[in-house]
Order: sequence, then structure tokens, then C-alpha cells
Amino acid sequence: MHIASPYLLFIGDATDQLSIKMARGVADWRPELCIAEYSVQGCTVTTGLEQLDIKQAAARGAKSFVLGFANSGGVLDKKWLPYIIEALESGMDIVSGLHDKLSDFPEVAAKAKACNRQLWDIRHPEAEFVTGTGVKRPGKRLLTVGTDCSVGKMYTSLSLEKSMKKAGVDVDFRATGQCGILIAGSGVAIDCVVSDFLSGASESLSPAASDDHWDIIEGQGSLSHPAFAGVSLGLLHGSQPDALVICHDLNRVHMRGLPGSQLPSIAKTIELNLEAAKLTNPDAKVIGITVNTSSVSVEEGKNICAHLGKEFSLPCVDPLRDSADSIVAALLTRDSANTSTATGAITA
Amino acid sequence: MHIASPYLLFIGDATDQLSIKMARGVADWRPELCIAEYSVQGCTVTTGLEQLDIKQAAARGAKSFVLGFANSGGVLDKKWLPYIIEALESGMDIVSGLHDKLSDFPEVAAKAKACNRQLWDIRHPEAEFVTGTGVKRPGKRLLTVGTDCSVGKMYTSLSLEKSMKKAGVDVDFRATGQCGILIAGSGVAIDCVVSDFLSGASESLSPAASDDHWDIIEGQGSLSHPAFAGVSLGLLHGSQPDALVICHDLNRVHMRGLPGSQLPSIAKTIELNLEAAKLTNPDAKVIGITVNTSSVSVEEGKNICAHLGKEFSLPCVDPLRDSADSIVAALLTRDSANTSTATGAITA
Repeated sequence: MHIASPYLLFIGDATDQLSIKMARGVADWRPELCIAEYSVQGCTVTTGLEQLDIKQAAARGAKSFVLGFANSGGVLDKKWLPYIIEALESGMDIVSGLHDKLSDFPEVAAKAKACNRQLWDIRHPEAEFVTGTGVKRPGKRLLTVGTDCSVGKMYTSLSLEKSMKKAGVDVDFRATGQCGILIAGSGVAIDCVVSDFLSGASESLSPAASDDHWDIIEGQGSLSHPAFAGVSLGLLHGSQPDALVICHDLNRVHMRGLPGSQLPSIAKTIELNLEAAKLTNPDAKVIGITVNTSSVSVEEGKNICAHLGKEFSLPCVDPLRDSADSIVAALLTRDSANTSTATGAITA
Repeated sequence: MHIASPYLLFIGDATDQLSIKMARGVADWRPELCIAEYSVQGCTVTTGLEQLDIKQAAARGAKSFVLGFANSGGVLDKKWLPYIIEALESGMDIVSGLHDKLSDFPEVAAKAKACNRQLWDIRHPEAEFVTGTGVKRPGKRLLTVGTDCSVGKMYTSLSLEKSMKKAGVDVDFRATGQCGILIAGSGVAIDCVVSDFLSGASESLSPAASDDHWDIIEGQGSLSHPAFAGVSLGLLHGSQPDALVICHDLNRVHMRGLPGSQLPSIAKTIELNLEAAKLTNPDAKVIGITVNTSSVSVEEGKNICAHLGKEFSLPCVDPLRDSADSIVAALLTRDSANTSTATGAITA
């Protein structure tokens, strides 16, 4: 899968910022992939991009029409089909992260075939996966893991990628959710994979690479979430991370969606993830902490990060307010120290 | 799903005992569900049941035609289609644990519809699952967990169920794999469920029950298996077990299918499973160990079990050579002690 860019982000008649999370994610992190936004009457939200309709965007070279909205059931309302048909006729592929599959709408499937265009249902993995092997592959890997779901693992991953690129590191962001896939142009919606292939799909997501290449893998769920820990564990084992970054959100009193479930401490999250990671990579280390501090003032956020950093002897930042430069700097320092050690043939 | 019995076990032209594991499992554990075996020329193995052809079995009341063989790709060879058609015409439903779906063969789908018969593709869960909640439900649950895949979790579960029935306990065996589903007549092939619904499907498998009812849930994989630990964890969290039984096979030098992966110790297996189980049931306890000792003499097997039992202060048996009576006896003694304690309103 490789989604062609630039994208026209279609947000329909959305009235809720949360419902256009997909469009906002890609507009924030990959503005260079986006040609414009397209909304219709009644829409009260925006990604901030220029507004163009389908014909205008096509004339400016748009290659993919992205359904940038979501709803709780993941349903594709039939009222959007004429827009999809028009986009196909204008030469664009269609990208959807909804549960309903584009290809299950006969008129859409027929039109895509007639126009020789792709339908990308990014929530439905198409690849044929195999079961995991646990065999170590070359290249370096970093996985973001969380105290809970939706605590900023994707934003942390993208922030780490940005800081690594700035530092001249050869790096790829590996997406495991719909929004991440749209940003990366490829990836695997890991919670949509059949359980038997969880680790195998995770292994294929970050394939063998050169020794100094880093994959930054977007984590999913939490080992402490009663509904999704299995997904988190399969992804952890398949990723074989050399480095883990712990992600936390201050504005959380219980596990997402489960008022009866307590949030684990950061210490517990470190312990659980390290223990599990060692099964497929005995050298796995936690190398930093990120905190979503948006629920407190900038100053208070900085104090909390400083306090946590001291408590765990790790760089700790809010990836949006502060950037992830300090985590990447610490990682690269450790890395080059390890390399010198290896060169000097000193065995600890 | 409820598979109608009695079954006619079709083993085709199998020449390998391992390839008829499904048929043997049900013939061993539920002979009362099986009317006969049916094999064709070239077959060199048997479940030991009487031989009947389709017409004879139908005349004796067979309700389901079970494809009791397997192969590595899970492929349904077209040469078996005439047999399936004949069974449908004779009034039987068809049961398959193969990867290929019966309903994907147009002539089979059409014939089943015409004859008003069911096609059960038990490897492909049909139910619409929801995500897990972690909310505790009434009733008691026991889950078998293992040092590895295929160490005897299903046989241990069935042996525990048998001992509990003998002791007059209200008990259900809950199947999570193809062979178990055939034996139980229902269940969920848990490794075939989409990852997002792993825990949710596991919760639905052992629904709320009366306080003194036990579900014996067939475990899958191992928390120490690099390919399948995610499945094991999702099943563990969704099962919310009160009691865990650790299953081990003496004849194992590395994790199944992965020569590079070391087997965990029994102590490590206890530690990992208890730690994880406590997330959804803080009162989870390990109550016994079972060992497949078939690779050593009966006497040596007894010595090994006695030694392990002493080491862990737990009843330890080979479930096939010894029965699981001692584990069940210990469990019920503990249970009635807890009840007396509760009645006496003593809080520890």
C-alpha cells in the first residue's frame, strides 16, 4: 500500500473537532501532503487549510480524496457517495478509515474500476500476514507505549521522528492506526489484524534495515488496558524495540472508556513493558517519557516533566509543547557510546 | 452456534495420526457425540470408531458431517466436494475447521441452501463481537495456561471438567480452538478473532453465570511465545479467571515452531500469568500443574509430578495418566473454606 499524495481532505458537514481528527492529524504533521480541505454547507470546523472543491483540487493536482471525518459506528453515510464518485471521475484515489468498506458500495467499486483508481480502506488490512517468528532483524527500532489508550503515542512518535530527522538520523515513522497510516502513506491498522497474525504483522511493519536505520513505531493501547492489552503485547513482541518511550496524559482519571479500571503508574508501565519486551529483545531499554500536559499551564507542565524526569532519571517532555529533542539527544549519545564500546571490543 | 450431534467423522484418505487430531479429539472426549468414522481407500489411520458410509450413517441418525482431517495450509481439496454434497443431500450439516471456507465453494453453498442445512466454518468466528469491558461477572472461571503452545491445555481442561462433573460440580467446558469447539458443540476460535475484539470475545465466551457455576476455559498459546502471547493475554484478561492451571510438556526443548526461542520455567510461567491475570481479577490463584509425561515411563512421570508438586506446593498430575481429581479436590476444599470464611464474615 502506498497512498498517492497530495491529498484533498474532505470533512463533509462536520461540527465537532474530534470528528475530523484524521484530517487534522495529517494537516498538522504532513502539510506538504495536503493540497486543500473541502467541506460542505453546515460544516463549522476546519483544519485551517485552504478550501477547494473537487474540480479545483483536481486541477491543482490532487491525487487522493481523503474521507477525513469519523463517527462512532464508522458508518459511511450514503449522502457522501456522489462526492466520492465525482472525485473518482476527477482522477483521484479514495482513502477511508471508516468501518464500512468503500468496495462494498457497488456504485463506488464499479466507478473505481472504470476510472482505474484505487480504493484504500485503511482500517481493513489487505496484506496476507504470516505468524511471527521472534527472529531478530537488523536495524534499530523505537516503540511508543502508554499508560492508557489515546495518551499521545502517535504524536510522540511523530515528534521523535521530527527530532531525529533534524539530527540527521535515517528514520521512518511506522504507522499502526488509521490516522498514522494517512500521515505515513502506508502502515498496518494493527488492531484490525486477525489475532493469530498480530506479532507477524508487527514484524512485517518494520522490516530488516541497515544497522544505523531507526524505525519509530506508533504504539497502540496499553498493557494495562483490560480490552486492548493483547494488541499492545503482540505489537511489542513483533516490534522487538531497542528503545521504548513511555507516553502519559495528565488529564486521565481511569482507563479510557472504563470508569472501573484504574490507571497504572508510570513505574508500573515501565516495569510491565520492559519485562514483556525482553522476550524478543533482551537489550530493550526505556529511554524517555512524554506527557500530554495540555490540561495544565505551560509552567506547571514544565514542572511536572522536570519532576518525573528526575524521579525516573530519564528525559521527560511534552512532545507538542517542548519537542522531543532532549529524548533523541540522550538516545543518540547512548548509541554512539555503545558504538565506541563495540569498536573498542570491550565486553561489559 | 450449536453443532448438531451425532457426528459422522470423515477422515478421507489420511495416513498420519496427527492430521486427524480433530476427529481423534472428539472420539476420545465425546464418544457419545460420534456415530461413526468414515474413511476412503488409501486411509491408514483410524479413531477406532465403527466404520459407516454416508448413507448408513444418515440412516442411523447422523446430524453433522465433520471434516476430521487437517493439513498445513488448511486447504479444502476439491476431491472432497462430492462427499460433502452427498452428506448435505442426506440431511447432515457440514463442520469444517479448515482455513478455506465451505461457503466459498458455490456448489456447496447452493446445495446447503437447497437442503436447508448449516455450514459451520468453525475456524471463522461468525459472531459480531464488541470490545472488552473488564467488568467482573458472576460465576467462577478456571483457565488453563501453558509454558508453550500445544502442551495439553485442551486435554487438561477436559480432564478437569470430567473430574468436576464426577464431583457433582455445575461446570461447562468453554472451547477456544477448532478441536475444542467440535467437542463442546460451540465456542470461539479465539486466534481467528480480529485483535480489537480479543478480550471482548473472551468475555462473551464465558458469560455471567450463577455463583457456584464453573467455566473451564481452554487456554491458547503462551505468554512466553513470541508469535502468540498477544492472543494468550487477551484471552486471560477476558476470562477473568479465579483459578489458573499451568500446563507443561516434558518433551519440549524450545518454543513450538521457533528453534531460537527458549522455553520459560514453570516458575516464570506462574509469575507472568498471575501478574497479568490480576488486572481483571485481583483474586486469581494458580491451583495446580499438569504435565504431559508421555515421553517418559509411567513411574518416571509420577516422580516428576511428585517433585514439581512439592517444589510449588501445588497438586501436579499428568491429566491423561492420572486424571485431574487431585487438582479439583484441592480447588473445592479451598472453595468451601472460602465460603465458610465468607459466612463467618471474617475478613483476612
